[in-house]
Amino acid sequence: MGITTDDRKKRWALPEGYIPEESTGPEPEMESHETICILNPGEEDATVDVTVFFTDREPAGPFEKTIPAKRTKHFRFNEFEDPEKIPKGTPFASVLESDRPVVCQHTRLDSRQAENALLSTIAYPGDS
Amino acid sequence: MGITTDDRKKRWALPEGYIPEESTGPEPEMESHETICILNPGEEDATVDVTVFFTDREPAGPFEKTIPAKRTKHFRFNEFEDPEKIPKGTPFASVLESDRPVVCQHTRLDSRQAENALLSTIAYPGDS
Amino acid sequence: MGITTDDRKKRWALPEGYIPEESTGPEPEMESHETICILNPGEEDATVDVTVFFTDREPAGPFEKTIPAKRTKHFRFNEFEDPEKIPKGTPFASVLESDRPVVCQHTRLDSRQAENALLSTIAYPGDS
Amino acid sequence: MGITTDDRKKRWALPEGYIPEESTGPEPEMESHETICILNPGEEDATVDVTVFFTDREPAGPFEKTIPAKRTKHFRFNEFEDPEKIPKGTPFASVLESDRPVVCQHTRLDSRQAENALLSTIAYPGDS
Repeated sequence: MGITTDDRKKRWALPEGYIPEESTGPEPEMESHETICILNPGEEDATVDVTVFFTDREPAGPFEKTIPAKRTKHFRFNEFEDPEKIPKGTPFASVLESDRPVVCQHTRLDSRQAENALLSTIAYPGDS
Repeated sequence: MGITTDDRKKRWALPEGYIPEESTGPEPEMESHETICILNPGEEDATVDVTVFFTDREPAGPFEKTIPAKRTKHFRFNEFEDPEKIPKGTPFASVLESDRPVVCQHTRLDSRQAENALLSTIAYPGDS
Repeated sequence: MGITTDDRKKRWALPEGYIPEESTGPEPEMESHETICILNPGEEDATVDVTVFFTDREPAGPFEKTIPAKRTKHFRFNEFEDPEKIPKGTPFASVLESDRPVVCQHTRLDSRQAENALLSTIAYPGDS
Repeated sequence: MGITTDDRKKRWALPEGYIPEESTGPEPEMESHETICILNPGEEDATVDVTVFFTDREPAGPFEKTIPAKRTKHFRFNEFEDPEKIPKGTPFASVLESDRPVVCQHTRLDSRQAENALLSTIAYPGDS
């Protein structure tokens, strides 16, 4: 039931990234967050290396994430800790490299002001 | 007038999915909802199997949907009932497999707080 | 300077469409609207036929639009009049067919509640 | 670690563009803005020419931007100054042409009303 059936590595890119510094409303569901949603519809577990790019320093990572077969994982950048934390209030970008075909989508919930705002887009699928 | 003219199955993926648990405002138009909009611009009815993926259990479905020729259908995940309901407040993802070429777009209206928020993206078109 | 240089017809699809029935704030900038933004970066004027699909009736249109060379036009579905109006509060979808390569993006401003919400996505580029 | 490994020029298009005329909340983070986020995951600096298209006048630009190797830059259209400023409250579109492979994403924060709204989409990748 894979969305793709090739067995090449898959790369995805997200030029936009920003963790708002403040939040309004109950946590964790209304905490401001920047999320990468990864779907692994395949029969084998996928290991994804996330590299985070900044405007004025060397990239951070890779942050290694596992998405089991036939599962989805929605990771919040503000919960990244190893090898380092992603600073809030700072523009960044990310590239995902998976050893199995996966699909990635980007979502932000911004609750800095009293009412939350949302954005989402499918990430850019790179050449294998 | 089809957007695609090939007769192969079409697969679409949406790694993001989440039905907010609360709503503010009159129903059904302001009820929080997670929607897949499917367009069948072709001359023949399309049957779409929707499989829903979770973080920690086996996938649900398939949920079978029909989109008649030259019609669009906007399905709300919170109205899925057969073979089971999609729980609220739970991250999920979905894959759509159609027997005719269709186009899919994902939209969420989140009215948990007093003012609604919106997100939308074209789904990821998978290899046939 | 064209984003594409082929001279084939271009098709774009938008499965999501909905004109909110109410608005809050000064018109026209804060009026709820559903917009297709079309960019014609080429050297020749483009003629675009927009067909609108519904859930339970035959499609409407084509609505013929002209985008001059090296110009962009942002059309609001609520201003479509010929050959008919698009009803508010009704789900629809659209297909654009251009005689020149163009690029299409979909944006909604929803001001039904006191604070506006936004969504946007690049339309789905169909096979030529 | 490039998302793409070819060495051809890359073009990206954004048919939607609009800088809201008003803002609510502290600047610069809550000022209404229209942003292009560009990621250069490659080993060499990228030079990007941005051309801005309007509804009723000749295009503006090119605005030349540099994105160093392994960096991301998030440019706000309201800060474009050379060769000219982008007017507020005016529909526009943009095309980006890079001498190195980059990835582009479009984000708007609209704080005209008391609570901010967000939109985002990956830009449309043009033929090289």
